[in-house]
Amino acid sequence: MTEVIIAGIGQTEVGEHWEIGLRDLALDAIQDALKDAGGLKPQALFVGNMLAPNLSNQAHLGALIADYAGLTGIEAVTVEAAGASGGAALRQAYLAVKSGMVDAALVVGVEKFTDKVGAEVDEALATASDSDFEAVQGMTPASQAALLMKRYMHENNVPSNGFAGFALTAHANGAANKNAMFRKAIKPEIYAKAEMVSDPLNMFDIAPNADGAAALLLTRRDLLPRDYKNPLVKIAGSAASSDTLALHDRKDLLYFDAAQISAGKAMKQAGVILDQIDLFEYHDVFSIYAALQLEAIGFAIKGKGWELAANGDIGLKGRIPCATMGGMKARGFAGGAAGVYQVVEAASQLRSEAGANQIAGAKIALAQSLGGPASTALSHIIQSLD
Amino acid sequence: MTEVIIAGIGQTEVGEHWEIGLRDLALDAIQDALKDAGGLKPQALFVGNMLAPNLSNQAHLGALIADYAGLTGIEAVTVEAAGASGGAALRQAYLAVKSGMVDAALVVGVEKFTDKVGAEVDEALATASDSDFEAVQGMTPASQAALLMKRYMHENNVPSNGFAGFALTAHANGAANKNAMFRKAIKPEIYAKAEMVSDPLNMFDIAPNADGAAALLLTRRDLLPRDYKNPLVKIAGSAASSDTLALHDRKDLLYFDAAQISAGKAMKQAGVILDQIDLFEYHDVFSIYAALQLEAIGFAIKGKGWELAANGDIGLKGRIPCATMGGMKARGFAGGAAGVYQVVEAASQLRSEAGANQIAGAKIALAQSLGGPASTALSHIIQSLD
Repeated sequence: MTEVIIAGIGQTEVGEHWEIGLRDLALDAIQDALKDAGGLKPQALFVGNMLAPNLSNQAHLGALIADYAGLTGIEAVTVEAAGASGGAALRQAYLAVKSGMVDAALVVGVEKFTDKVGAEVDEALATASDSDFEAVQGMTPASQAALLMKRYMHENNVPSNGFAGFALTAHANGAANKNAMFRKAIKPEIYAKAEMVSDPLNMFDIAPNADGAAALLLTRRDLLPRDYKNPLVKIAGSAASSDTLALHDRKDLLYFDAAQISAGKAMKQAGVILDQIDLFEYHDVFSIYAALQLEAIGFAIKGKGWELAANGDIGLKGRIPCATMGGMKARGFAGGAAGVYQVVEAASQLRSEAGANQIAGAKIALAQSLGGPASTALSHIIQSLD
Repeated sequence: MTEVIIAGIGQTEVGEHWEIGLRDLALDAIQDALKDAGGLKPQALFVGNMLAPNLSNQAHLGALIADYAGLTGIEAVTVEAAGASGGAALRQAYLAVKSGMVDAALVVGVEKFTDKVGAEVDEALATASDSDFEAVQGMTPASQAALLMKRYMHENNVPSNGFAGFALTAHANGAANKNAMFRKAIKPEIYAKAEMVSDPLNMFDIAPNADGAAALLLTRRDLLPRDYKNPLVKIAGSAASSDTLALHDRKDLLYFDAAQISAGKAMKQAGVILDQIDLFEYHDVFSIYAALQLEAIGFAIKGKGWELAANGDIGLKGRIPCATMGGMKARGFAGGAAGVYQVVEAASQLRSEAGANQIAGAKIALAQSLGGPASTALSHIIQSLD
């Protein structure tokens, strides 16, 4: 059985990088990952990106970034699945290595949101929802998430500050992450007084759009350099699932089928049960998504995912630590890079390189990357081999 | 060794489909391919698309199309590499099946160009070139191809009608293809009098932007239904390569490195030499691309690719039949679907289902899908097993 190893990890700081372009961001993360991998040369590049064709007038990122990174000639392609683009790019790289056709595959997730503002960004983000039936009505991902959150609060009698724990945990964890956009813990009073984006979703229930890039180098275990120095981390499970794009087509608005299916498949492949998972990098672009992921995967029963956040169960010393480096809320949401950041951070944890945020003895991590309200879900189980 | 079989093929007519949307086009081709495959159920969908985020305000096509095709829940993703998106989607599906992680993978290439006209389409197409250094100067893919063509004609003393053979062959072959946009042979006088798009590139040297969808179902040989009825066709070789996105960064403007490298790798994998290739589906979105592909792959020496067209060598009874069902010029250029149409047509030839355009005894075909001026190149060797 081919073991696929994460041999290199890299990332840029997440933030408003007005001074450098999309390709430069990607290059920074790639160089970081290649250096970390100790000289392994990739034969393929998988780019996770969400909105460059709309926001930067730039498609065809595979060839562009491969060339810019000095890898001219290698196989290179862009993988898109809205917010899950990063997770999806990782999966394609995984399949390429697993197939035996590619020895070493580079994944880079890259996004540049902040060159544009306001309606232009909203319109671009809305391309991730059903254009003919949702976006055309003026629905944006945030207003859609607000509808989900309202329904959830109504059905489950959630108090008005019931979701605060997601933001508080993320911002507490982001404080020690030098690559995070926001590095300051927030207090419950701040959350309670925060401005509404789309009632009941306030500005702490939505992750900030940001610029950033993260990269991973995958290879087969038998191809690692003899002097490879990092603790060994492998991809033990990889799976993807999809659901309706339009929310109105769902049988149950408040259950993320694709999150459940893909996590279940990845765990089955890895031979891992829920209790063995030491940390969970969820897709907390909206607090409600995080709650529904916790429920779909089985960390909480239906309607009670928010309680894990309220009770401190998702904290660094909690039952199931989540968003351990700040998640999308504090690290920042860099679109197609988001799913790659998750795995870079999870790998850091498994290598015991997470500094002040280290989960003691972490051996197994789950990362789940979503496109829209789990219209696409990618799940990866990352496991320490040391 | 896992043998990857093309178990089902499907396509829509190529043309101006103003009456139906992107998802409907995709659905038609998918249903066609699933029916052809005799009931095999895919676990994964790979969508090849180029410009839907720009032209249809619709990204996230994987989940959208999977759901619309009644395949809700399967793994689904979009693969983008400009004009090579179709070939790249096929490659990802191939790797997925080859890896053993996916039993049956569906590929659909889909594009809808003609809902928009003029500058909007030009701007969208220009996202395939280097936005910061080429498109920003007003360069479009057509004007870039015209520069290449002019240089080629100058260096190789090509007469003014030297490229006519590409258009004449394509339109002659398109006449009998019921799915082609143009089904009428043209005469040399028509080519000679054609309006210039960007001198020396006239309207017959550029393929028409069109709407269309094509689909393939891939599976492992051992998973074919017992009552599978189609002649067996396999993917014997699959490879990808990239080159600089910006043309000014090339060492040699008139040599398509990525076309050479990817074709060479695919042939090596298949254990096939050039002489054994019975037909070649090239990426004739511009005549100059076809000429440079013929040279890069080795069907002609450098500077003489155009002569194969002028001499009739690329005709149905020629030395190396090309664009056998009309190519992009007569079938029409449906962006991300183009690379899938190539393989659907090649598979038809190998199944002896190409009607009036049948290449007698065809056993091995090469399809090559390009993004930009071979900034991306995907090569697939398709082989008959009967």
